[in-house]
Amino acid sequence: MSPDHPFDQAISLTAVDDDTYAGQVSEPYWNSISPYGGITVATVLNALLLHPRRLGDPLALTVNFAGAIRKAPFSIRVRAARTGRSTQHWQMELHQDGDPQPLLTGTAVFAVARDTWADTEAVMPACPPPEAVQRAQPPLVIPFLQRYDMRYVDCTPFAANAHSTTQCWLADVPPRRLDFPSLAAFCDSFIPRLFVRMGAPRQVSTVTLGINFHVGAASLAEESSPFVFTRTRANAFNRGFYDQEALLWSASGALLATTQQVVWYRD
Amino acid sequence: MSPDHPFDQAISLTAVDDDTYAGQVSEPYWNSISPYGGITVATVLNALLLHPRRLGDPLALTVNFAGAIRKAPFSIRVRAARTGRSTQHWQMELHQDGDPQPLLTGTAVFAVARDTWADTEAVMPACPPPEAVQRAQPPLVIPFLQRYDMRYVDCTPFAANAHSTTQCWLADVPPRRLDFPSLAAFCDSFIPRLFVRMGAPRQVSTVTLGINFHVGAASLAEESSPFVFTRTRANAFNRGFYDQEALLWSASGALLATTQQVVWYRD
Repeated sequence: MSPDHPFDQAISLTAVDDDTYAGQVSEPYWNSISPYGGITVATVLNALLLHPRRLGDPLALTVNFAGAIRKAPFSIRVRAARTGRSTQHWQMELHQDGDPQPLLTGTAVFAVARDTWADTEAVMPACPPPEAVQRAQPPLVIPFLQRYDMRYVDCTPFAANAHSTTQCWLADVPPRRLDFPSLAAFCDSFIPRLFVRMGAPRQVSTVTLGINFHVGAASLAEESSPFVFTRTRANAFNRGFYDQEALLWSASGALLATTQQVVWYRD
Repeated sequence: MSPDHPFDQAISLTAVDDDTYAGQVSEPYWNSISPYGGITVATVLNALLLHPRRLGDPLALTVNFAGAIRKAPFSIRVRAARTGRSTQHWQMELHQDGDPQPLLTGTAVFAVARDTWADTEAVMPACPPPEAVQRAQPPLVIPFLQRYDMRYVDCTPFAANAHSTTQCWLADVPPRRLDFPSLAAFCDSFIPRLFVRMGAPRQVSTVTLGINFHVGAASLAEESSPFVFTRTRANAFNRGFYDQEALLWSASGALLATTQQVVWYRD
């Protein structure tokens, strides 16, 4: 948390009551015609993190983008649907302009961790450190892209490719220590897989995004590098929708999150 | 749809009103202490498929298991949160015994497909046909396991393994043509990844499960084999929770669905 960082300003919320939070769409994280989806996901997660009855750390999060969010105030309503001994289930909605139909729906699971046998099968690929890789200059003038330092490793995202896999280092601009909201935002930051295949931008829009967190708050707070390493790919492009999945590791090699999304597209 | 098949009986629902459906927990799909999660996911999806205002085919589904479902009647409440030109966003809850706190929450996106450029990157691995592979005899007497024909290829799921990946053919018992509810149920049928690592059963419980569908109703109806081929793995086991992800292909090689879940465990 750095109060002056544009990310912290963008996800800041005011509690209206226990289950309602008021926010304002961020200019620095604006996309071409709507807010950057990652900042919206981070803001919704922040509402849960701020909630006085929140249990433990985020374990899983699903956010569905149901309608276009406008550059205007919004409210986030959350409900603790059921709280057990080790898990807590949340439902979330985002509204604007008093419209009873939500522009975003979601669910989340928070959990209390326990000491158990542990193993990570998804080991971070060998790669040069971020200092050894050049920062990519995105070809589009999109505000939110200026808020990320992306350093691609062994891939050429801005040319047509036979496969959609990209690997890159990723950090906030200016550099910021990792936390759950920034990780959640990272999960939507990857260049759309359709652009990687086509070698050029197309019309795309995220329909739904899921995140599984594999790290606790204490471990995450110990990561000193602002960079995460990410591997991202698509499984299929089909009849107007494609998927995207990614893994995110800390610079120290810990698996932090896995994420998947479905994207509407025009070719 | 085969009305006499135990699967169709298990997922059958009675409309109480437009947004409420009544069902009954199925004996043939019972697990050890609660209903098999896959049959619950399929039943919730069936409520949406039966809904008179449903638009298109299922594209993405998230189901969160918030509390233990008992062997008793249940009701499923659904809400079309927002319907656009090409997508429709749903919220779902499952309740028992008049408890206002749901035992299950979920969201779904349905979509109308369009003709576009298409490509599948996740190609089905080379494997022998199901007729050439022996059916596995599960070591536990669990009712729902008798309802699946599982044929493992190049893995030994019932011994301790250094990695959790398994590949298997999978079909309903008795054989049944594929549809969206059966595909959704398949997504929870895989032997828990912790058992694959430990070589023995442990206490596990699915917390949340997501499915992305990559096939339309018309293409799915053309698949004549009751078998799907599946590859399943975990990324990480950590502090009481692990993840599981899987891909499902038809016998003709079409990618049908990708799925991911988070599982609570005791070691």
